[in-house]
Amino acid sequence: MQRQSDRPPIKVGILGATGTVGQRFITLLSVHPWFTIHALGASSRSAGKPYAQAVNWKQIAYMPSAVKDMVVQECVPEPFAECAIVFSGLDADVAGDIEAAFRSADLAVFSNAKNFRRDPHVPLVVPLVNPSHLSILRQQQALHSPPLEKGFIVTNANCSTTAHVIPLHALEAEFGPIDTLMVTTLQAISGAGYPGVPSLDILDNVVPYISGEEEKLEWETRKILGGISDIDSSEGGRVLQEFDMHAQTPLKISASCNRVPVTVGHMMNVSVKFSRRPPPSPQQVSEALQAYRSEAQLQGCPSAPVQTITVHDEPDRPQPRMDRAHQDGAGVNVGRVRQCPVLDIKFVVLADNVSIGAATSSIINAEVAVLKGIVAS
Amino acid sequence: MQRQSDRPPIKVGILGATGTVGQRFITLLSVHPWFTIHALGASSRSAGKPYAQAVNWKQIAYMPSAVKDMVVQECVPEPFAECAIVFSGLDADVAGDIEAAFRSADLAVFSNAKNFRRDPHVPLVVPLVNPSHLSILRQQQALHSPPLEKGFIVTNANCSTTAHVIPLHALEAEFGPIDTLMVTTLQAISGAGYPGVPSLDILDNVVPYISGEEEKLEWETRKILGGISDIDSSEGGRVLQEFDMHAQTPLKISASCNRVPVTVGHMMNVSVKFSRRPPPSPQQVSEALQAYRSEAQLQGCPSAPVQTITVHDEPDRPQPRMDRAHQDGAGVNVGRVRQCPVLDIKFVVLADNVSIGAATSSIINAEVAVLKGIVAS
Amino acid sequence: MQRQSDRPPIKVGILGATGTVGQRFITLLSVHPWFTIHALGASSRSAGKPYAQAVNWKQIAYMPSAVKDMVVQECVPEPFAECAIVFSGLDADVAGDIEAAFRSADLAVFSNAKNFRRDPHVPLVVPLVNPSHLSILRQQQALHSPPLEKGFIVTNANCSTTAHVIPLHALEAEFGPIDTLMVTTLQAISGAGYPGVPSLDILDNVVPYISGEEEKLEWETRKILGGISDIDSSEGGRVLQEFDMHAQTPLKISASCNRVPVTVGHMMNVSVKFSRRPPPSPQQVSEALQAYRSEAQLQGCPSAPVQTITVHDEPDRPQPRMDRAHQDGAGVNVGRVRQCPVLDIKFVVLADNVSIGAATSSIINAEVAVLKGIVAS
Amino acid sequence: MQRQSDRPPIKVGILGATGTVGQRFITLLSVHPWFTIHALGASSRSAGKPYAQAVNWKQIAYMPSAVKDMVVQECVPEPFAECAIVFSGLDADVAGDIEAAFRSADLAVFSNAKNFRRDPHVPLVVPLVNPSHLSILRQQQALHSPPLEKGFIVTNANCSTTAHVIPLHALEAEFGPIDTLMVTTLQAISGAGYPGVPSLDILDNVVPYISGEEEKLEWETRKILGGISDIDSSEGGRVLQEFDMHAQTPLKISASCNRVPVTVGHMMNVSVKFSRRPPPSPQQVSEALQAYRSEAQLQGCPSAPVQTITVHDEPDRPQPRMDRAHQDGAGVNVGRVRQCPVLDIKFVVLADNVSIGAATSSIINAEVAVLKGIVAS
Repeated sequence: MQRQSDRPPIKVGILGATGTVGQRFITLLSVHPWFTIHALGASSRSAGKPYAQAVNWKQIAYMPSAVKDMVVQECVPEPFAECAIVFSGLDADVAGDIEAAFRSADLAVFSNAKNFRRDPHVPLVVPLVNPSHLSILRQQQALHSPPLEKGFIVTNANCSTTAHVIPLHALEAEFGPIDTLMVTTLQAISGAGYPGVPSLDILDNVVPYISGEEEKLEWETRKILGGISDIDSSEGGRVLQEFDMHAQTPLKISASCNRVPVTVGHMMNVSVKFSRRPPPSPQQVSEALQAYRSEAQLQGCPSAPVQTITVHDEPDRPQPRMDRAHQDGAGVNVGRVRQCPVLDIKFVVLADNVSIGAATSSIINAEVAVLKGIVAS
Repeated sequence: MQRQSDRPPIKVGILGATGTVGQRFITLLSVHPWFTIHALGASSRSAGKPYAQAVNWKQIAYMPSAVKDMVVQECVPEPFAECAIVFSGLDADVAGDIEAAFRSADLAVFSNAKNFRRDPHVPLVVPLVNPSHLSILRQQQALHSPPLEKGFIVTNANCSTTAHVIPLHALEAEFGPIDTLMVTTLQAISGAGYPGVPSLDILDNVVPYISGEEEKLEWETRKILGGISDIDSSEGGRVLQEFDMHAQTPLKISASCNRVPVTVGHMMNVSVKFSRRPPPSPQQVSEALQAYRSEAQLQGCPSAPVQTITVHDEPDRPQPRMDRAHQDGAGVNVGRVRQCPVLDIKFVVLADNVSIGAATSSIINAEVAVLKGIVAS
Repeated sequence: MQRQSDRPPIKVGILGATGTVGQRFITLLSVHPWFTIHALGASSRSAGKPYAQAVNWKQIAYMPSAVKDMVVQECVPEPFAECAIVFSGLDADVAGDIEAAFRSADLAVFSNAKNFRRDPHVPLVVPLVNPSHLSILRQQQALHSPPLEKGFIVTNANCSTTAHVIPLHALEAEFGPIDTLMVTTLQAISGAGYPGVPSLDILDNVVPYISGEEEKLEWETRKILGGISDIDSSEGGRVLQEFDMHAQTPLKISASCNRVPVTVGHMMNVSVKFSRRPPPSPQQVSEALQAYRSEAQLQGCPSAPVQTITVHDEPDRPQPRMDRAHQDGAGVNVGRVRQCPVLDIKFVVLADNVSIGAATSSIINAEVAVLKGIVAS
Repeated sequence: MQRQSDRPPIKVGILGATGTVGQRFITLLSVHPWFTIHALGASSRSAGKPYAQAVNWKQIAYMPSAVKDMVVQECVPEPFAECAIVFSGLDADVAGDIEAAFRSADLAVFSNAKNFRRDPHVPLVVPLVNPSHLSILRQQQALHSPPLEKGFIVTNANCSTTAHVIPLHALEAEFGPIDTLMVTTLQAISGAGYPGVPSLDILDNVVPYISGEEEKLEWETRKILGGISDIDSSEGGRVLQEFDMHAQTPLKISASCNRVPVTVGHMMNVSVKFSRRPPPSPQQVSEALQAYRSEAQLQGCPSAPVQTITVHDEPDRPQPRMDRAHQDGAGVNVGRVRQCPVLDIKFVVLADNVSIGAATSSIINAEVAVLKGIVAS
């Protein structure tokens, strides 16, 4: 493989640059080996100001000096015209129109927003799981009116979805389809952004409800773990592709979502039933998870974790405060792999919801796209 | 019904009086309409001291003045001889021998400890669920060597077991047997006593493991929700009774237990499958839970909650900090009753683990025993 | 004294009824022995709706059934015309104009907002300290254009000010003027209302800054602990009164304010130097604090605490979680009374910021005004 | 200066290796550029076991592989005979005898324990403040019976003392003696070790008391900020040296200590009065703090922070969660530098109590000693 540090830097833009996810993009991209921040976009309230004046910086890492004086732009395509990649940390209430406009302007958008996740032509990619879904992008470009050369939208998943599909995919890769999935989440407050969860709602408390989260978890999991099928288009026999939503072996999922007073780190109690009889043993499951290598890491994505899934042997791990930060939060942690008296196997998953659960996933997706030649670099 | 306040006070003793559960017993019993605290027992380190000097008082309620000068006794039967009831808040490492000795001395023991919960002759009673199990006590007394007249041991359940069996029993009473149960708990730190959970283990953290808890939850649930069957004893054809562990319709249970940074209030995410087809609807489940009346309340136990199960309509309730304290923590809360895509129905349960989950249950058990004439009053 | 329960109920209104303080007013007033809730006012967004639909109820106590169906009014005087007392829990950004309009309509306003606290004709009354300042109300009415018969504005203090002026006043009452005061606060999140402090700002964190709080603490303390002086008005020799701001013995104050992750209960580390030499001993200070009786309690205000200041002997008390709730949060707690190596005496104060620190103070102020005949009842 | 990486590695031992501070020593020393871990000592319960089996590892950093199989030794000098430096993280109840025995065996001990801090011949060194106090070591060795060649004890300060003496020393270096100091601390739970503070004592709570802490803070500050004076020994006119405890310009100190629910990071509200009139302005104080360079850093200690004191301009900083981790917690943070209405200047200090407040200080002390030639390297 060509040494990546020899590449000329790839110019990238960030939409929603003053928000929580946008700040995370800046933190990560300011030290990225390939990408260089070229343009920052935010609401018209911020546009025209130097970034340092526009933002209420909430990252623990200090603000990178390179962006302090960058003038924030309106979220319109022109100032981003030179960007090979545009990362979007926009809020859902505006992401739809803006991201569509950027795509129409033939820009490559990697979005953390939920707006296009259910679009039949937009891949929903967890980079340690299904970068193969990027193959739908040609169709997305072809069906656009007018057809696009470079523009597209790639989405990454909800933070809690991302956490559990990584071990689930590793298990399906080794043991075949999962038939049933029960998952109960204990999600960190940072998953709700800033200001997000009022402290009076969560101190000395847990909240057994996150609006829309259970539906997202159930739906997104099927799209990500599913495949891509050819279909005969009604429009003149042209062969089209569609996401099959795990349809070949239907996947029953029940998700229950809770907010807990943890700053960072979503934890999930997962129980699965496999299609195969007999199912794998806990020992086999542990070994398969620990041995799993993501395509992103094998191909050389610099932000992909070396150890995709870290399996813990101690009975009381993983824990958010102890395990979230390893590998800069780019991998996931699994522990307590054991028999489930109702389904087959149960275990605990922990992932850093602001890293692999959000900005880091978008960035690895872009890295994969660069390596696959999908974006001009 | 006879007005209970006309009774002469019933003398009660408290074992483990300086511990967390013991302090709770004192707080509750010091204002009880029937019972009067007659003797306090603790370790030999405390024995001989006035209670106020022996204890590290950790209740929010101030120490009742009536106990401040009571001299703490060793945990031996003699000083408790006049007690019609002995409540035990002893730690498991000593509860076994001491409670057995008290029973042998013909004393009636209501224990919060786990030691005798699995004993085939000892009832495990959640007072809002299965006070009918107290009927086994005659056999417990008869089989003792020598047979006992007044002495026995009654146990109450683990705090998390108590929380969910109340709605589960209400559902079985209305809709017949439950076939499958998946439960994930978010348990408060007070469940581990004092000093209990080190703050460094739980601040900005959750711990996906509580030693022995999942086994207790699975086992105790079956004993409590099960019935009592007659068996032919091998010893000369005498008919004996045994707990059937829900054997007539086997109950599959999978429990996952987590510790969360909440002071008081265990929350559980519960999903159930009924034997009956079609299963009841969420609406029917909600109504049955809200309508459930416990035998303890109907019979007039003064510590039993008027509303056994409070069903919440708001999508984000119950929550520990908001809902634990109503009815002095003697009832349970249920919310988010909805379809489960894998089993039939899922919902959230919240209970005050130090009230109905511990001392309050022991006390209502004793109240039931008084009303049934099982203890001399 | 006339038995208060024989009074006909006094109609009261609540402005800002859907906010945090307004909800607290409703909770307290719905069970008040003298007052009956007659009208609720909120923003035009809420006006016209039944209260239960207009409010996002955030109290632990369930919503009183008496207010659920009350139709919320605009904050204009007409619907409150029959109210002998109007409590204001309005936000500062609207409280100024609305409260002034209510006063002009000859209504008696007891406000928790800060807008009029610095007005030279408006008393700033902590009811356990300086109800004598209500005497300025005649002047406030007389100077109004046109003069008022019944209308006026009374304010109560900031929640942290309220906490420490109670023991400070008790000390001045016994030992004469305080010369110097250093105070460092650890303030609960509920002091910021709802949604208030974002959880990401305070979980596993403390914030050494609360906007405007140190100035309020320094300024309000002087007004409350100071007296009322006669001055010759420049307008024709008429004798007027003014608050002397503790001017006769100037009081140096330095306040440092911190936000801490506590739901309810402001704690302060206080150090004082007295004018008198030698200063009182810690023992004398403890005794004076414990013995202090407020005029409000002595006169028979039903919401005034029986024990104004509870002095703790244990070295580690008071603590918010353990001590805030006693007497429904209407008193204050003091502990760790000891020598200060720099000033004279230092000690710790704890007060329930949402009870005596807010709504409870307004209500006791109104009770005092009723007993003094200042409001028609 | 000689490039330090060219040195042969210096063998070091760690006493109390399984405790909280010991684990921190291991984490830091396992990647130290000069030191190599040669021996680990713990109680006889752990001795003889491989470290990985003896320890309950509680660091977020994974256990360094280099120590996993090291056999834990008893805390006796023999197995440490080859160590040029012995770090002690022992608990105070055993540190006195063990550290004395190591010194008698001619070993150089750098201790985090409090036992010898008040010894008139033992320097109490905060490495960013008073490494000059190491000069007393010759006297400590000479007065030992028999006199020592290489053995000595150096202590570092209590974690809260360490936090504030750094800016205080910087101020004295620039503006001359401080006359009066008032300090109120908000201390993290990690300051109490593990298991340390029970979670039930600190969740939704603050505790206004830490046993012995205020005395330590007041006493240690004087020793560290004071100088060393010559005294005529009564024993034959020999000139001895003693710590003058800031005696030339007596320093009045009043400390109030609170425990808060923060994992790591002690925050202090500090107010000072200078001897010089007029005192420096807040601006001058800020500039002096920001400009301060420690001798340890100037001399090239690899663990010393580049920026000793980071002065924050934002009104609400520093905060524990946001600012504790910069420079690996080796520096301190100051903010809110402003006028004090009672003394001269007040400000907020934040320091990582487990880094510069504990193990990191011991290690920099040892680095200074190496650079000064006090320990053989």
